[in-house]
Amino acid sequence: MGAVFQLEHEVLYYEADTTGKLALPMMLNLAILASTKQSLALGVGPDFNHAQGLGWVVLQYDVDVTRRPAVGETITVQTEAVKYNPFFAKRTFTLVDAQGAELIAIDSTFAMIDMNARRMARLPKEQMGVYQAERVKQIERMTDPTPLVNVDAQQAYKVRYLDIDSNQHVNNSKYFDWLFDVLSPEFVQTHEPLNIKIKFENEVRLGEIVHSQVQMTGQRTLHRVMNDDTVAAEAEVVWRD
Amino acid sequence: MGAVFQLEHEVLYYEADTTGKLALPMMLNLAILASTKQSLALGVGPDFNHAQGLGWVVLQYDVDVTRRPAVGETITVQTEAVKYNPFFAKRTFTLVDAQGAELIAIDSTFAMIDMNARRMARLPKEQMGVYQAERVKQIERMTDPTPLVNVDAQQAYKVRYLDIDSNQHVNNSKYFDWLFDVLSPEFVQTHEPLNIKIKFENEVRLGEIVHSQVQMTGQRTLHRVMNDDTVAAEAEVVWRD
Repeated sequence: MGAVFQLEHEVLYYEADTTGKLALPMMLNLAILASTKQSLALGVGPDFNHAQGLGWVVLQYDVDVTRRPAVGETITVQTEAVKYNPFFAKRTFTLVDAQGAELIAIDSTFAMIDMNARRMARLPKEQMGVYQAERVKQIERMTDPTPLVNVDAQQAYKVRYLDIDSNQHVNNSKYFDWLFDVLSPEFVQTHEPLNIKIKFENEVRLGEIVHSQVQMTGQRTLHRVMNDDTVAAEAEVVWRD
Repeated sequence: MGAVFQLEHEVLYYEADTTGKLALPMMLNLAILASTKQSLALGVGPDFNHAQGLGWVVLQYDVDVTRRPAVGETITVQTEAVKYNPFFAKRTFTLVDAQGAELIAIDSTFAMIDMNARRMARLPKEQMGVYQAERVKQIERMTDPTPLVNVDAQQAYKVRYLDIDSNQHVNNSKYFDWLFDVLSPEFVQTHEPLNIKIKFENEVRLGEIVHSQVQMTGQRTLHRVMNDDTVAAEAEVVWRD
């Protein structure tokens, strides 16, 4: 078990969608906010890693949504770096409401990038010790999103300047913008996500044009974000009415 | 002088751009966050007005930027409804840093909309009394942005589902996304805004395609957001290197 870090956050009006509830992309922003704050508190924040030419990247998220909090609610984001092997780390996030009830649970796999060589780097043992993460041989693979086989709808999105955050990468939450924008407003206003799986495969860059594709299969939507012929990300969402 | 309301806010990583400083659109989000919180504290929040078929809209902002705060800084947003006449209200916002130094000063003109008739409504006297706003005959017009005469660059943007906030309108800050995205990344990364004037002229709706146009004139950029042949907004930005 890793060291648990907690962060309180009030859901602000500009973090909500038209339903008055936390917008889906914000779930990922709050997760990364908590893990970054933990890293800073432990003295191993982004600047510490950047100074060594290293940076964390998220490879995959699996998000279970029990209830999305509403504007004005104060929630707590709990996170811990659970375990790691030489190349992968598993981190969990739990968003709970003021009564301690679980709102959203996120499982994730992180890796480290050598920012100059643009390839995966070994996770620094000392740093993982700081998080009290357990060292293991094997990190079990997360369940991949079911691949899409037919494209029922797609839209093009240009990567905008403000899609890049202060970590100098396209903010992960922007992929959720692209995934959900291709669905009809009627669909997203009348359906709540139960589970979202997303796997990031290839980075996209400022000015590039991505295509967000979706296959509608009843209460399940299968997604792919394409950058020309390259798959940038795949996702699968299970919905309830 | 109106009643002054104050709100503390920590600048979060997902509220910053690649410079690590508060993203320009966030300035408007923080302003509206503060005025909405004041309204809620005074018992005249969005739900109170919506129940009477009324809603506030911003007609114009004039933003002076001394310094944009960095990620991790805790700032205070101060706001007051200064004065009003039967149709217009003047509200000011001041963002100050932890030492009390002014970061950003915003002047604004608000009006009220009859949401069913889609036309301007008279400002309810009792409500303006709650804000301790001074009743005046005349609200001086704010300086309009200089109109653009040549289009040096333009880009099309589709209004996305997540551009609509919990107030059911395109979030004002999205106009800033469109204004600044049409400038080159090199320009926005090497220039800081000194003053931004924006005038909202016609509402845009979900799914519509707007064109963000810019004229570059040295340290001044002139902007227009077009929705087909209709001007949705005009803006003027003065920059420093």
